[in-house]
Amino acid sequence: MEPGFSNIGIESARQELGDIRSKKPLIHCLTNEVAMEFTADTLLAIGANPAMIICQFEAPDFVRQADALLVNVGTLTPAVAETMFYAIKAANYAKVPWVLDPVAAGLLPWRDTILKKMLSLHPTAIRGNASEILALAGCGSGGSGVSTTTASCDAVDAAKQLASNNKTIVAVTGAIDFVTDGQTTFAVDGGSPIATRITASGCVLSAMVAAFLSQTENPLLSVASACRIAKEAAAMACKQSPLPGSFKRFYLDALASL
Amino acid sequence: MEPGFSNIGIESARQELGDIRSKKPLIHCLTNEVAMEFTADTLLAIGANPAMIICQFEAPDFVRQADALLVNVGTLTPAVAETMFYAIKAANYAKVPWVLDPVAAGLLPWRDTILKKMLSLHPTAIRGNASEILALAGCGSGGSGVSTTTASCDAVDAAKQLASNNKTIVAVTGAIDFVTDGQTTFAVDGGSPIATRITASGCVLSAMVAAFLSQTENPLLSVASACRIAKEAAAMACKQSPLPGSFKRFYLDALASL
Amino acid sequence: MEPGFSNIGIESARQELGDIRSKKPLIHCLTNEVAMEFTADTLLAIGANPAMIICQFEAPDFVRQADALLVNVGTLTPAVAETMFYAIKAANYAKVPWVLDPVAAGLLPWRDTILKKMLSLHPTAIRGNASEILALAGCGSGGSGVSTTTASCDAVDAAKQLASNNKTIVAVTGAIDFVTDGQTTFAVDGGSPIATRITASGCVLSAMVAAFLSQTENPLLSVASACRIAKEAAAMACKQSPLPGSFKRFYLDALASL
Repeated sequence: MEPGFSNIGIESARQELGDIRSKKPLIHCLTNEVAMEFTADTLLAIGANPAMIICQFEAPDFVRQADALLVNVGTLTPAVAETMFYAIKAANYAKVPWVLDPVAAGLLPWRDTILKKMLSLHPTAIRGNASEILALAGCGSGGSGVSTTTASCDAVDAAKQLASNNKTIVAVTGAIDFVTDGQTTFAVDGGSPIATRITASGCVLSAMVAAFLSQTENPLLSVASACRIAKEAAAMACKQSPLPGSFKRFYLDALASL
Repeated sequence: MEPGFSNIGIESARQELGDIRSKKPLIHCLTNEVAMEFTADTLLAIGANPAMIICQFEAPDFVRQADALLVNVGTLTPAVAETMFYAIKAANYAKVPWVLDPVAAGLLPWRDTILKKMLSLHPTAIRGNASEILALAGCGSGGSGVSTTTASCDAVDAAKQLASNNKTIVAVTGAIDFVTDGQTTFAVDGGSPIATRITASGCVLSAMVAAFLSQTENPLLSVASACRIAKEAAAMACKQSPLPGSFKRFYLDALASL
Repeated sequence: MEPGFSNIGIESARQELGDIRSKKPLIHCLTNEVAMEFTADTLLAIGANPAMIICQFEAPDFVRQADALLVNVGTLTPAVAETMFYAIKAANYAKVPWVLDPVAAGLLPWRDTILKKMLSLHPTAIRGNASEILALAGCGSGGSGVSTTTASCDAVDAAKQLASNNKTIVAVTGAIDFVTDGQTTFAVDGGSPIATRITASGCVLSAMVAAFLSQTENPLLSVASACRIAKEAAAMACKQSPLPGSFKRFYLDALASL
């Protein structure tokens, strides 16, 4: 384990996964169009109950029925952003936890303006790659499209600062995932480099974070648990096949069998 | 087989499937964003020809070239609803059969208003889970998100009433599928519980119903046949793997090899 | 090999693939909602870096950061078309190569008007099935939905004419792919008929064409190389399974292992 960081055991992560399986939390997903099917399949594989209700007339109503909300800005448009703001405000009003996935932060001014507004609305947690977290913390200018150009270990300080300044939990994920509330920081290693060869592996982890947050009294531990489960499933899947088409299938299988 | 219900044999269902394979009906799909790829792959696997033409300027033209229309309201927005109404009216004018999948009926007032209008436009068939069919029949207030909270057998009377009142065919699907025109009711058992662990398994069945309706002189039998084929494929897939990532792949394989 | 056509060797195609793997070009994809996930997974499998930035305020900015642009009109709407025109103009201004995939050309007047305008903006390459290329060349009235009703060999003359008249490269793909600049024409055979049983196999080939064009000094050869790699991967996948669910998985595996 990385020195100076806390460790999250697989057993406690499994226990949280067991809670999700028994309670089947309803996760309201406002996510990008590329990741929708894989996100729904991932949530079903861990035992959660996904729903994508994307209409501006419905999302605020629906989020109050949900146990957590996911907001992923990958394929943001003005209409999508409007629905997201309605849903976020309704989530805050109803005390439903919500997760922000700041896809491609730092690259595009319009998106960064939207992300700044979202950040001011107190996400329960933020999950991004190193380039995104650095950009959101004001310490970087983004990656290459939706891919990071920086290792996660080089964004730990930015993650801590982002968490402290916004009283939130930040997960900066990569070869090692770091999960911090600004004071305590978990490091989660393991996993497989193949995860970067399938689309939306970060996006579906953000959805898992939302599911884990829906049940918890210890949000920091729960976000780290979600990362631990994802790393474990990726390692299992990679043992079955290191090729991306097969890996994706086995990743869902592993999540369901953990 | 369930007592009091009609039975649909696998042989006659296979025969209808053979007709689809030889005629390759063009199925116009207006479906939700989560289910699009899996819907297209499912229709291709059974030998049909899927197309998603979603523009309000094109859908009414296109549906007249198609052999059936699927309307699935999962990711409904005002713009999507407008296109759907144009397409439905054009389908009715051109006597193209159309299937309504009332995703998440009963949970959200705006959606329920849209669904009531769609119901008044005479769908050839409706396919939903128990919570959705109960809500559409006015006997329930919806499920948990897009998942049912009621067993299909508890929605049979609602399905019959919905079919009779709207002169349509209703398939309420679940552990057992019930397909009714209000007078005769088929029960279709078998399948696999794993089907509920992959997203959009109901949505793709609705697309199959559209394909089976495109060829038929006996709509009730054809909807039951679509359910029979889906149950058979699910049972075959589950024998190959009970884990969801693999199951999804083998489900498509089974549909193609039946 | 087809008489009268040039041949593209697997070794030179592999070499271009190697360049993509080492340079990881950023491919901006404006594609249809059915094909998004498979397109991203395909580009990742060949080593490129996909990103779907679909907002009209962002796409023109983003395309200038990209190495190539894909424009696929499958699920065209007025808003999507507007974003595409902004992105195309920005691509031309910044000399970023772009690929047009004219899905369902010839069937719908509104779409054909949009396609005619796009054609006038000088795509670097066009990839379509025979019915689409014939329609775009003014020699046919479209296929059956998004499927062709004509063999690719019957659209070679139309492809040549389309390429000459628009100073572009045209790939008309099918059982044999023909790639032409109007003067030299490559024929690429091999592959597997199963590719037509999975959705979006043409769409993802267009994305591959964009990736291959991003690196090249010989665009004609690069488009032919993309087709060669796709044929090779399809043949490998079909050997592993001729059933569509499995084929799709093995196709991505093959692309990653070539």
